[in-house]
Amino acid sequence: MTSKSSDVRPRPAAGIEHWDYEADVVVAGFGVAGASAAVEAATAGADVLVLERTGGWGGAAAMAGGFIYLGGGTPLQKACGFDDTALNMKAFMKAALGPGVDEPKIDAYCEGSVDHYHWLADECGVPFKASFWGEPGWEPPGDDGLQYTGGENAAPFAATIPPAPRGHVPQMQDKHVSSEKGGGYMLMKPLTDKAAALGVRAEYDMRVQTLVTDEDGRVVGVVAKQYGKEVTVRARRGVVLATGSFAYNQAMVEAYAPRLLNRPAASIEEHDGRAIQMSQALGADLAHMDATEVAFFCDPQLFIRGILVNGRGQRYINEDTYPGRVGQATLIENQNQAFLIIDEEAYEAGMAAPSSSPQLKRKPRWVCETVAELEAEMGLPEGALQSTVEVYNRHAQQGADPLLGKKAEWVKPIGSPIAALDLRNSTGGFTLGGLRTSVDSEVLHVSGDPIPGLFAAGRCTAGVSAGGYASGASLGDGSFFGRRAGRSAAKA
Amino acid sequence: MTSKSSDVRPRPAAGIEHWDYEADVVVAGFGVAGASAAVEAATAGADVLVLERTGGWGGAAAMAGGFIYLGGGTPLQKACGFDDTALNMKAFMKAALGPGVDEPKIDAYCEGSVDHYHWLADECGVPFKASFWGEPGWEPPGDDGLQYTGGENAAPFAATIPPAPRGHVPQMQDKHVSSEKGGGYMLMKPLTDKAAALGVRAEYDMRVQTLVTDEDGRVVGVVAKQYGKEVTVRARRGVVLATGSFAYNQAMVEAYAPRLLNRPAASIEEHDGRAIQMSQALGADLAHMDATEVAFFCDPQLFIRGILVNGRGQRYINEDTYPGRVGQATLIENQNQAFLIIDEEAYEAGMAAPSSSPQLKRKPRWVCETVAELEAEMGLPEGALQSTVEVYNRHAQQGADPLLGKKAEWVKPIGSPIAALDLRNSTGGFTLGGLRTSVDSEVLHVSGDPIPGLFAAGRCTAGVSAGGYASGASLGDGSFFGRRAGRSAAKA
Repeated sequence: MTSKSSDVRPRPAAGIEHWDYEADVVVAGFGVAGASAAVEAATAGADVLVLERTGGWGGAAAMAGGFIYLGGGTPLQKACGFDDTALNMKAFMKAALGPGVDEPKIDAYCEGSVDHYHWLADECGVPFKASFWGEPGWEPPGDDGLQYTGGENAAPFAATIPPAPRGHVPQMQDKHVSSEKGGGYMLMKPLTDKAAALGVRAEYDMRVQTLVTDEDGRVVGVVAKQYGKEVTVRARRGVVLATGSFAYNQAMVEAYAPRLLNRPAASIEEHDGRAIQMSQALGADLAHMDATEVAFFCDPQLFIRGILVNGRGQRYINEDTYPGRVGQATLIENQNQAFLIIDEEAYEAGMAAPSSSPQLKRKPRWVCETVAELEAEMGLPEGALQSTVEVYNRHAQQGADPLLGKKAEWVKPIGSPIAALDLRNSTGGFTLGGLRTSVDSEVLHVSGDPIPGLFAAGRCTAGVSAGGYASGASLGDGSFFGRRAGRSAAKA
Repeated sequence: MTSKSSDVRPRPAAGIEHWDYEADVVVAGFGVAGASAAVEAATAGADVLVLERTGGWGGAAAMAGGFIYLGGGTPLQKACGFDDTALNMKAFMKAALGPGVDEPKIDAYCEGSVDHYHWLADECGVPFKASFWGEPGWEPPGDDGLQYTGGENAAPFAATIPPAPRGHVPQMQDKHVSSEKGGGYMLMKPLTDKAAALGVRAEYDMRVQTLVTDEDGRVVGVVAKQYGKEVTVRARRGVVLATGSFAYNQAMVEAYAPRLLNRPAASIEEHDGRAIQMSQALGADLAHMDATEVAFFCDPQLFIRGILVNGRGQRYINEDTYPGRVGQATLIENQNQAFLIIDEEAYEAGMAAPSSSPQLKRKPRWVCETVAELEAEMGLPEGALQSTVEVYNRHAQQGADPLLGKKAEWVKPIGSPIAALDLRNSTGGFTLGGLRTSVDSEVLHVSGDPIPGLFAAGRCTAGVSAGGYASGASLGDGSFFGRRAGRSAAKA
């Protein structure tokens, strides 16, 4: 048995002869969780050093659409005419992101959400435009600031939990000119500017290798590699881990979330899970390691206008819900098999509808005059698809979808010509599980106690999601609990 | 933050003033993995002490049906007229127990399977009766020794992987007189007799609390509680952990396998996950923590004769497969919603068919003359169930099930009167994930290196299953890798 990565083991501080860098709070990773931690630690008076593996700040966040899941009545929600309460937000998150959600974390997140909005907008200068995008889509095609991003206004949630849109996206600048000014960039630029203004230092090309502990087991620094050379970094108060998910660690994905094997998405190659492993070597506990965000590579403007069927020709989800729920249901519950059944008129309407994802305007694979022909061409057993369409159409004539509860406005009988889009194996995503942390972002030992000096946030931790997902929950809990990690470390 | 179970942290050997017990190899848990480890360690010349939490040997194994998943051409398979090869066994296990299976472990398991049979039968005296039970069922109702227990002879596997029955069950004695002489008992009695004959000592009412390590990090003992008093146990060569799953640790189930919350089955309250946590405190790695065996509480003799539909009235699995696959598909892919649709004649036949589980001969909830009436009574949308039955019957008239591939012998049009059994929330099970171990049953540190002196097997480890399951895989890998744990510890 050869050692695969034995340097994830902690190094004893007594063996460190020289510290190359030193700060009160050392933050690993300059994505959304790391930047939020840095700002708050610096605001609390700490001298902060961020170690970033790549050549610049941003992480996966800067490349993301930029949604932050916020609610409870934010100024943006109010300006767009939506009521929301922390109570409704909690109810939705607990229903949609489980089973097995971390309830204290969701409670803290929802109760602090309006404050978090103010911090982002007022303290850090993240711009939000007070306009609502109400069309189906992964993201607004323009610079609108608010969208439904969790299926709040769709079955099965809308019937019992008053819905509100909670996807807050920073206002994009010249979106069509440069992808570098999308919502994620417009979140990260102000956050990192703020960090710089507060005196936060950053070292780039710094790969964190392992943690340094003193004789009492307290984390007092990290060992990193910079330009291939090992460097030591002393943390006088605490270390914050914020290095992202394990979506690009093949062995970890195989061991914990194998359905996601070879299909990482919305994540970056730096997401190698090392922060998780370094912490496991200290006895850190884990949670929800199988949980995954799942993108579904088709424009919702298309699939909301038809019916999604699985490999048996059966409908399995209301097509008007959050497309990430469609992705999860397809990958986890339907063997990654999906087809969109849609008539020509609806397809054309979907193609013409605005979308921020033109590459997801997928083409039909089969087009026929009748459902029977389509069914045969798709290789489905006789009657399998015909019966699905017949039952759907029967109710659609009354504008109803009693099987899955799609909203009446999107329910319309499927006519002819009829097409099928082949959406098999059209999913990808990132991992949501990781280190178990307290509501104050302390990394918890398997004993239940915090590991002294060690804090974490973002996708190296298990955050508010336990399996379900809503767009914005990751930048949301990354920034929210990133801030708490920074504050906790600063006073440690 | 108060400490929940801080004593899972390792104790330094230097702080132990007195060892209450001492042995070369200390085995925690006297179920199938522990007994197998004890026998092999003793056979290798080690002085062995087993620490068992309850008042007697047996663990969950002694209460189980007793299946051991074996193949590759065992004497029992041959005596019953079945061909099998290690290659076919590997192909099946890799296809059925994944995704993400530990391939080296499956390879070792399949290549060593015939030898393992000989060890069980010839070395240890586990009795197997050379008779095959070919009816649908969880277990043979009598004392037959061989059964299909993984869906090998059903879709989708049978078409590409030559099937063979691999569920080997020890011959029961007076089964109807005493449940203490079921297959699991008849496995554990010979194993523990063999251990005793080899001089293995056992201490009962011993709750292992944590591991003891020396200054190099080697595991050199355990701390336990006996009759409420803390005792120390020195392991001169190694410690083997074999204390079962975490199915009864509510916090762990919530964090890792929340779909199983409040529905443990085929497990015992002693399965508290402590061995996993004690090892995590040493930096042990984990795998497949979400994987679960899922029992489905209905007699296969009933459901094979009808069609299973989900909460939308859709079929979702071939009813002639391994019932554990039905359980997994129901719980994980269909929101734990299932109904059995069956006509009177088939129901009566199923009720009359032999079964080892009379309590699973469930009663109908609704009985109607027509499918339309049944559909309405069940509260399904008009057409949802009618179309399912219509399409099934259309093909069943030709003896075919093109949708899901149920074998022709079980395909028969559904007539009238027609009934529905309410099988919602009729699942339960145990966890399959746990410590990551090598093929030699060394507990692996997150670095990839073995933790010196620490070995494990059975359900506190991730064994051959990564999510899928076959009956006998748990007693199978528990005994197989339990033996390896004992041998590895004896020579450590």
